[in-house]
Parts: sequence; C-alpha cells; structure tokens
Amino acid sequence: MTIPTDSVGIVMPKTHHFDAPLALDCGRTLDGYDLVYETYGELNADRSNAMLICHALSSDHHAAGYHHENDPKPGWWETCIGPGKPIDTNRFFVVCPNNLGGCKGSTGPNTVKLDEESTGPNAVNPDTGKRYGLDFPIVTVKDWVRSQERLASMLGIDKWAAVAGGSLGGMQALQWAIDFPDRVDNAIIIAAAPRLSAQNIAFNEVARQAILSDPDFYNGRYYEYDALPRRGLMVARMLGHITYLCEDAMRDKFGRELHAGGMNFSVSDTEFQVQGYLQHQGEAFVDHFDANTYLLMTKALDYFDPAADHGDDLAEALSCIDARCFVVSFTSDWRFSPVRSKEIVDAMIKAHVDVSYAEVEEQNGHDAFLMPIPYYLEVFHAFTKSIAL
Amino acid sequence: MTIPTDSVGIVMPKTHHFDAPLALDCGRTLDGYDLVYETYGELNADRSNAMLICHALSSDHHAAGYHHENDPKPGWWETCIGPGKPIDTNRFFVVCPNNLGGCKGSTGPNTVKLDEESTGPNAVNPDTGKRYGLDFPIVTVKDWVRSQERLASMLGIDKWAAVAGGSLGGMQALQWAIDFPDRVDNAIIIAAAPRLSAQNIAFNEVARQAILSDPDFYNGRYYEYDALPRRGLMVARMLGHITYLCEDAMRDKFGRELHAGGMNFSVSDTEFQVQGYLQHQGEAFVDHFDANTYLLMTKALDYFDPAADHGDDLAEALSCIDARCFVVSFTSDWRFSPVRSKEIVDAMIKAHVDVSYAEVEEQNGHDAFLMPIPYYLEVFHAFTKSIAL
Repeated sequence: MTIPTDSVGIVMPKTHHFDAPLALDCGRTLDGYDLVYETYGELNADRSNAMLICHALSSDHHAAGYHHENDPKPGWWETCIGPGKPIDTNRFFVVCPNNLGGCKGSTGPNTVKLDEESTGPNAVNPDTGKRYGLDFPIVTVKDWVRSQERLASMLGIDKWAAVAGGSLGGMQALQWAIDFPDRVDNAIIIAAAPRLSAQNIAFNEVARQAILSDPDFYNGRYYEYDALPRRGLMVARMLGHITYLCEDAMRDKFGRELHAGGMNFSVSDTEFQVQGYLQHQGEAFVDHFDANTYLLMTKALDYFDPAADHGDDLAEALSCIDARCFVVSFTSDWRFSPVRSKEIVDAMIKAHVDVSYAEVEEQNGHDAFLMPIPYYLEVFHAFTKSIAL
Repeated sequence: MTIPTDSVGIVMPKTHHFDAPLALDCGRTLDGYDLVYETYGELNADRSNAMLICHALSSDHHAAGYHHENDPKPGWWETCIGPGKPIDTNRFFVVCPNNLGGCKGSTGPNTVKLDEESTGPNAVNPDTGKRYGLDFPIVTVKDWVRSQERLASMLGIDKWAAVAGGSLGGMQALQWAIDFPDRVDNAIIIAAAPRLSAQNIAFNEVARQAILSDPDFYNGRYYEYDALPRRGLMVARMLGHITYLCEDAMRDKFGRELHAGGMNFSVSDTEFQVQGYLQHQGEAFVDHFDANTYLLMTKALDYFDPAADHGDDLAEALSCIDARCFVVSFTSDWRFSPVRSKEIVDAMIKAHVDVSYAEVEEQNGHDAFLMPIPYYLEVFHAFTKSIAL
C-alpha cells in the first residue's frame, strides 16, 4: 500500500503514567492512571501550536495516519487531520489521547488495577492479572478534561491553540473551554449538544440493557470467564448505527434492496441489505471494543450537562469561556441535530462568547462529522486558518 | 369499578375454527386455523353496518370494553370505539380479530399444531402439547386479510362498511381495500405507511436480534424449556417505545428528571426517569406477549409493500380500490411520519381513488393514534358519520 501524501504517515502511540491521584466526579479517586495518545506534526518553539483532539463514544487515540505500512485503514479523523487538511499538521502539533475508561490502552475497565502485578495496562496476562471490569469508576466529561489537562502539562503545553472534537468529543471541547478558560484559545465543537435529550438517554439505556442482560456479561467480569457479551454489544452497536445514519442516508444506501439470497420468509434470515449492514457493523465491533467501556462512555454522555451546575442556565455556564468557539452541525443529523447546536450558539451569544456557527447541508446524519464533505472541510479549514499561532 | 357509560361495557371474546386450508404468501399452507375475535354493537338486518378493526404489532382482539367488572383497563382503542365515539357502536357492528400468528388465542407460535391432541389453542397442557414456535409460518399482511375475509363470510358480512386500523392495522385496512375492492366500502388508514423505510426495517432488525440472541430463546422453542427470552423481548420493547414516542413527547414527559434515587454513578442504576419508564414498559410486556409472535409481526411489517407487485408503482397498486379512503397522520409521528401517509394519499389521488386526508398537529408521536386528541377524534368521527349504512 502507498500511504497518501496528505496523510501524517506512520505513527506510533505513546503512553504516559500519571502518578498523582485523580479525584473523580463520582466521589472516587484513581490513585494514578495511564493515558495512551498519539501526536502528529511538530510542537513549535514557543509551544503555541498544539491542538487537542477529543474522541467520541467508540473511538480512540488513533485519529490519523497508519500504524504500519500495510495498515488497511487510517485513523478515524483522517479526513480532517494531515498536511493541508483543516487540522493542518504542517501548522499544528496535534495530540489525541484515548479517554480514561477507554479500552485501547488508557486506564479503563479492561486494564488491571495498578496495585496489582502489572507493567502496563496491556502488558499483563489476562489469565493472571485482575481487570477492573465494572469496578472501574464512572468517569464524566469533566473527569476526562481534568485527566487531559495533566497530559497538556506533561507535554509542556500551557495553552491549547485549539481543542476540537465531534459528538462526545465536541462535548469535551466545550467542557475544556468552560473548565480551563485560560488554557484554551479556540474550541471546535462539532455535531454535539449541550446535554442529552430524553430520547438520547433512552437509546443509551436500551444499548446498556442489551449488554447488561447478556448472560456472558457476568456483571462486567467476563474477562475472568473467558467470555465476551458479544450478543449484547452487537445489539447495542446496531442500535447505535441507526442513530448515526439518518433515514435518508439509509434509504439512499440500502432502500428496500434485498440481499443476494432474496426473500426467505424466515425471522432470522438476512433479507434486506440494511439488515446485513447492521449485523456486519455489530459483529465487527465486538471483536475490537470493550463492553464495559461502551457502558462507561454512554454514561458519560448521559451525565454531560454543563448547565446543571448553574441552575440550568446554559448561558451562565458558558459565560466564563474565553476561547473563540466554532460550532458545526449537519442538517441530517438527528442524534444531535442543528437545533441542539444552536442551543449552544445562542447561549454563547447571550454570554458574549466569540462564536462562529456553520450548519452543513448534507445527507449523512451524525456520522457526517467524519466524512469528506467539501463545504464542511472548507469552513472547518477557514476557521483553523484564522487561528493565530 | 364503574364502567363508563360511553364504553361498550363487558365483552367476551369468541373463537372460530376455520377448516379449509389457507395458502400463505410464504408458500406454506395452514391446514386450518382458529381466530379469536371480539364484537361490539349489533349487526343490522341487512348486514351493512359491520366495521372491521385491524390491530397493530403488539395488540390483539380486545379493542374496546372490559373483560370483567374489575378489569383495571379497557381494550386498546377504547378512546375511539364505543357509543357516541368515532367508531360509534350505536351505529356500527364492530369486529376485531387477533391476527394469525398472534399470541392471544388465534393460531400462532404459542398454540399447538392442529394435528396434535388439542381441543383449542389455549386448552392444551403446555407440558404435553407441542407448540409451533418458530415452525409457525411467516404470515404477511395479505395473509391476514385473506384469513379475515373468511371471518367476514362466516359472520355473513358480504361487505364491510369500513375496515379501520392504525399503524400495522392501517396497512391491513389498505391491503383489504386493494385485495377485496368489492367487500370494503370505506378504508380508514391511520398512522401508516405504504411500506417500511430502511430505518424502519433497521429498528425491527435490532429488536429481532435482541430476541434471537437471548440464550433463553432456544431457537423459538422456549416453551419446551420452561423458559422465556425475557431480556431480549424487554430490549425489543424498550426500543419499540422509543419509536412510538417522539423526542418532544419524551422531553415533556421526562426531560432529564432524575429518579427518586438521584445520581448513583453506576452503569446499571436507573437514574433518569426515562430509563425507569422504558424498563417498566419492557418488563411489563414480557409477561403478556409472546416473543415468537413479536418476531412474526415485525416481519409482516418488513414485507408489507403493495407497490412491489406493480413494478414499485404505488398508484398502479392502488388503482383497483373502490372504497372511499380516509388517511390520518400525526405531525410528531416519526415512525410513520405524515410524509409517508402523503405517499399513500398522493398515489390514491393519482389513481382516482376517493380519499380524504387529515394531518393532526400534536406532540405524542406514533402512539397518538391511540390517544384522545380532540381534533383527531373530531375528524375521525366526521368521516365515520359520513358512512352511509
């Protein structure tokens, strides 16, 4: 495979262990934790060109580039990160960590407790090391920001040129701007919402119930039983995919087209192409994502609610923001629709926050923030170009 | 309890056994079958005042009235059926059967095969009788109409004054008007669609996977294992409820209100009220509905597609309709939105079918067709009053 010239190329993740205890919103404390992260581009001499990328529910620290020559696919935000792209690695030093509670190397449910024999989260024999499982504390968006702030300090970055993310990542960007106004120059908040609606929570709840009720879940200790709650996680992921694609995108992609096998008049056969697509997505997911992490991430979504600490007054919650903000929504996104993004924008305007807003007309639903949509890339790039380094 | 005066009062279901074989769309034949049904009101002398009610996915033949003095709740369409109501039992003789493949007395997955020791579907000891389970053939909307046509003949009804239903019931009303143009005077098609969208099918598929992957499903033979796929059916029902309520209705009903227990920072605790609501709906459902029937009903929805036999030309498919049609949609219904109802209406107009259409502005989502919404009841009643008997 030839790696495209507008890619950051081959990258290797790094891991850093943070020693100091981290107090969490849930009242518990992590004695210490590891964060795995990737970086792209070069930090400039005055350390003013760093951009933090926050990932969404099922993503990780691998936002761009390839892990090796024959890696079949690049990081999850390859469309936006690279030389000459909106997150231009010729200008920015880009940092993307895996969130605390994640399953790709940062301390989380599938890593062993630090007080046990361990030389690192993934360096332990699962047959002997004991993993957190559901003993891992609930983490919130605020906790993530707190843990990422230490990563910034460790890297010698006093102030991010920008913090950016889509979906749950956008919520972290917003929380960063609220919690560390003097450490964020620009916040890029894409396909997000100021908090989940009852319907959003309802979808998360169904996904969680599917996992929790899988007998192979073993109350989160499936690692010890050499089991995986495959069925529950698959159903959760299939459901997620319905909310990532909009109705029109599904119609255009699949319509009512039948699979090669045609109509079989069976409750379990895959007849319509959309069934096959969802099943494939679900099955592929269970092999590379941890069910406990999925539960934690959905909870972090449910709990996110910056206005809650301010008597439900979002403008009041955002009034401390010093960063220039850029909010983007997609017309066909029904998970976090433009209406939800506008709630953020309206509250920012009320709070005299410097905000720009772009509503991108397109047909791909929530997943659009990952896609090479020309107008989206154009406005995104226009904003990042305006960032003075 | 005092039974309201605008109720049909205490009713008892009847069962009829149909001897003649019924050829099904799937290519299989039922040697015979039982239909359980209820009737309200009186058949007039020239048998011209009969109205057939077709039920939706999880309903049954008990559309109105009470089964006994202390019955805590009436039939599922009590808001619309009764003396002085839109389906006025002072004028109409109302018939509502449980669909073939149902689980409330008509022949279905939970009834025994007729060639085995049985004196009726529910009169068999489940320990000795063998139930169909997933051996029950897939039934389609057309099959239901075919089976109901025999019920009409048995009752001496040559022509229905009207066939009416909401959601999957509305699809049956439409199919009746297509398949038996000379036996339907009026078709009342509420909150329906001419066929499922890819997204509709996707939701059905997730629900089915939740059931099929429950280890207590035993490939549909859970009756024999004294088991119930409770978890899968619960998840399926929870998901269904999200699609029955719209986002606004959920917000108004629950918002982000917390349960009495407050925030517990646990992945399995019920914290937001919407979670508790869905879990309650799911748990209540599994005790009175059969999982195999749920699978069959979702398949009937997926397969419904009258235009398919006419080169995807819906107007062509509807051109044989002789009935006056009344189509109703609800603005907040996102399962089968007004856009989908208008597809039916537009095709009817193109096909010169006599059609009236009402779009009811309200906030309750798909479930609105069951609710006492004044404008809905008013236009519904106006239409039924215009039916000459």
